Formats: sequence, C-alpha cells, structure tokens
Amino acid sequence: MRARVLIRPKEGILDPQGVAVERALPALGFSGVANVHVGRLVELDVEDVSQLEAMCEKLLANPLIEDYSIERPDAAPQPQDAGPEAPRR
Amino acid sequence: MRARVLIRPKEGILDPQGVAVERALPALGFSGVANVHVGRLVELDVEDVSQLEAMCEKLLANPLIEDYSIERPDAAPQPQDAGPEAPRR
Repeated sequence: MRARVLIRPKEGILDPQGVAVERALPALGFSGVANVHVGRLVELDVEDVSQLEAMCEKLLANPLIEDYSIERPDAAPQPQDAGPEAPRR
Repeated sequence: MRARVLIRPKEGILDPQGVAVERALPALGFSGVANVHVGRLVELDVEDVSQLEAMCEKLLANPLIEDYSIERPDAAPQPQDAGPEAPRR
C-alpha cells in the first residue's frame, strides 16, 4: 500500500528554509504569501501500514524537532495522523 | 488560502535519500518496504492561488530534476486536515 509521510518542523522550532522562501518570494514578484514552512515528503510502499509510525519515530523524522503525519492517498479521504493531533498555531 | 506543494525527484532522476531510507529500514527491522522516494514539502498561505505554479517553477522546485504537485487541503474534500493548517502533534 502506498503511503505518504509529511514531516514538518515543530511549532516554535526554527525553520530557516521556510524563512528563506518567504523572503525570496516577494523579491521575485510574488505577493500575499505568509506562513511558509518547508518540510520533507517521504512516499513509500509498505506492506504493513501499522509499522509506519514506528518507522517515523526511528528513522524518517526526528521527533524532537519534527512533527509528522501519515497519509494514505489510496485509502479513505482522511489522513491518519500519528498521534493526537492539535491544530497548529 | 493554505496550500501545500509536494516536490519529488523526477522519474529516473537519482534519489539518494530514497535509496538510503529504503536500505536503512530493513536494517532497523522493518520489512516489506519498497519504492521509497524522498522529496520536499512546502506549506504556505497564498492570497492568489494561481501564482502557485509560477512560484514552483521559479523558486520552490527545480523543474529540470523535480516534479511538483499543488494541493489545497481546504478546497476539495481531499485529505482534510485539522483546520486551515496541516495537522501537527
């Protein structure tokens, strides 16, 4: 089963790439852009979807400074989040 | 409007991070994993969604070696996240 893991810097953790993009866009003529965050995207085929959370904790993300969410585009139209989810910001 | 840009190495372009993850997972005891690809995730608030493609071409992605796709979690009943933002923990 195809799965997608989205990894983002945790709230409050410095996101220098996001800052760089947010500053660069106006310089390129794009306006009205805010709250830019840059993270990682991991897409993979897994046989056992229940292993995904452990994979994130152990390898894909750094749980100290990153949040992750797991989505299965094939499955139901709702992302499965690893863990209790809280709205950001 | 919140938007999400997913950037992946183009088909056939070397994806060393994906290879590294695919090799590391079995070593950590995870089996049944294949076709791992690692890309970037950019989440941002934009006023004019029609600018997004140009932003990707000019800054966010490298169109020579990367593909990108634009998603709007608020819009279609696609992956629905917690509020106007992507879910976080």
